[in-house]
Amino acid sequence: MAQAFERVVICGLGLIGSSIARALRKHGLAKTIAAYDRGDVPARGLSLGIVDEASDNPAIVVGADLVLLCVPVGACGVVAASIAPHLDQGCIVSDVGSVKQAVINQVAHHIPAGVHFVAGHPIAGTEHSGPEAGFAELFDGRWWLLTPTPDADQAAIDRLRATWEAVGSKVEIMPPDHHDRVLAITSHLPHLIAYTIVGTATDLEGHIQQEVIKFSASGFRDFTRIAASDPVMWRDVFLNNREAVLEMLGRLHEDLGILARAIRVGDGDTLHDKFASTRAIRRSIIDAKQA
Amino acid sequence: MAQAFERVVICGLGLIGSSIARALRKHGLAKTIAAYDRGDVPARGLSLGIVDEASDNPAIVVGADLVLLCVPVGACGVVAASIAPHLDQGCIVSDVGSVKQAVINQVAHHIPAGVHFVAGHPIAGTEHSGPEAGFAELFDGRWWLLTPTPDADQAAIDRLRATWEAVGSKVEIMPPDHHDRVLAITSHLPHLIAYTIVGTATDLEGHIQQEVIKFSASGFRDFTRIAASDPVMWRDVFLNNREAVLEMLGRLHEDLGILARAIRVGDGDTLHDKFASTRAIRRSIIDAKQA
Repeated sequence: MAQAFERVVICGLGLIGSSIARALRKHGLAKTIAAYDRGDVPARGLSLGIVDEASDNPAIVVGADLVLLCVPVGACGVVAASIAPHLDQGCIVSDVGSVKQAVINQVAHHIPAGVHFVAGHPIAGTEHSGPEAGFAELFDGRWWLLTPTPDADQAAIDRLRATWEAVGSKVEIMPPDHHDRVLAITSHLPHLIAYTIVGTATDLEGHIQQEVIKFSASGFRDFTRIAASDPVMWRDVFLNNREAVLEMLGRLHEDLGILARAIRVGDGDTLHDKFASTRAIRRSIIDAKQA
Repeated sequence: MAQAFERVVICGLGLIGSSIARALRKHGLAKTIAAYDRGDVPARGLSLGIVDEASDNPAIVVGADLVLLCVPVGACGVVAASIAPHLDQGCIVSDVGSVKQAVINQVAHHIPAGVHFVAGHPIAGTEHSGPEAGFAELFDGRWWLLTPTPDADQAAIDRLRATWEAVGSKVEIMPPDHHDRVLAITSHLPHLIAYTIVGTATDLEGHIQQEVIKFSASGFRDFTRIAASDPVMWRDVFLNNREAVLEMLGRLHEDLGILARAIRVGDGDTLHDKFASTRAIRRSIIDAKQA
């Protein structure tokens, strides 16, 4: 059983932040849970009953032994700068961003000595956004990757591992640049493609566009769900994982050229062999219980 | 209530054919249901109890008032040729292919005078294949498109409409070439992209490939499901809807270039605007109850 934190402050009460609040409460992992956000989000968080305190004042992190940055990747540096003067000695700071090297670059230099920063990324989410969209079971059975820098505090790493395992996640530790390459192909590139293909359909001539929506088949339907994800979050992911995404996009582009040529010249064997080989990957994912 | 057929013969007892057999039986729409297939499929169909008769002999269509071609698009012509000498006068012949103009080109000239051919396409399916994978509810609430040629028999069109409505589908009639353009963007292109991106991942260096499977995030996971679809069916779709698929691929390629450039130069506004606009399409699809 993981030891409960005295005071957890969640900076950014969106889908992920509010799901963490709910999960920590459900599993008794925090005595007090507070939220730092802006606009009407603090009030919404309080009225949902998922946090004990909420404010748009960064001083709300005073007294926290765990602070989690749950904002879009591009906002992590600004939020870290705003809370930094109020962080207590011994506090653990982590985040949930889908890109890790850029977050470390933006956040680490703001963290005061005696405060322990360990970057992290739960591989979980839905296409919905906002504090109302969260749920306590979001992380159940999913990976939660930690990407500590070489100088990170081992006790902080261990405590985060125990906490995220307690909410049901499987925790693994990897270097931040490696994380960013793996996620570029498993998550960032699929989202980019889904956004693109749905956008292509949006730009079709009016008559056919209506029918695309009306007769939306399974492939396109899945893409529209992916392409309904939060635009700010995803803008920041692409801007902050530029090199890995563009490298993987280059590989995809080559492979798409091979298939396009096979279609053009009527080379059925190439198409069949390619399509048959991808079935094996699906089988591996089902076997790995990630389907 | 649709009038029941005396004898329905399903040519090709895969996911779609076996689902049709189950749906016709469930709704009392056929007195006798027979299957024409090869290898061990006739025996499997009989042992599943979803057909009354099954054979690898095309003469099984003798006496049928409805024959359905449920084989990959590229095999429709061959199957039509094999059954044509055995078709009774007044019989209705239809199909379920994902491409319509090419099927009509391959099938129509084999159909004897006095037999009524009306091409069709239920927009329904799963990534699973074979007679065991079918289920009676597959077509419930889904579109079933009919693409009759101008000389098609109106009574045959009306009877097919009534039959597919009786299994729960919404039926619409459209020209075959229009069907092929709409499906190119809603179904064929998404499948091509999914096959490609999963293939790209398959070709990564061994170490990172293992991690791609292990940490498969939601985007990639959805793509692998799509890319697990039947390779022969999809090879035939691309070979037989070449022009529309390549045209849509060209448009996608242009749009992907715009996003790639925005990532490269750090143009966050372009990314955000594009990602925000695709949310609206998702909303339209949910409103159209196709999600």
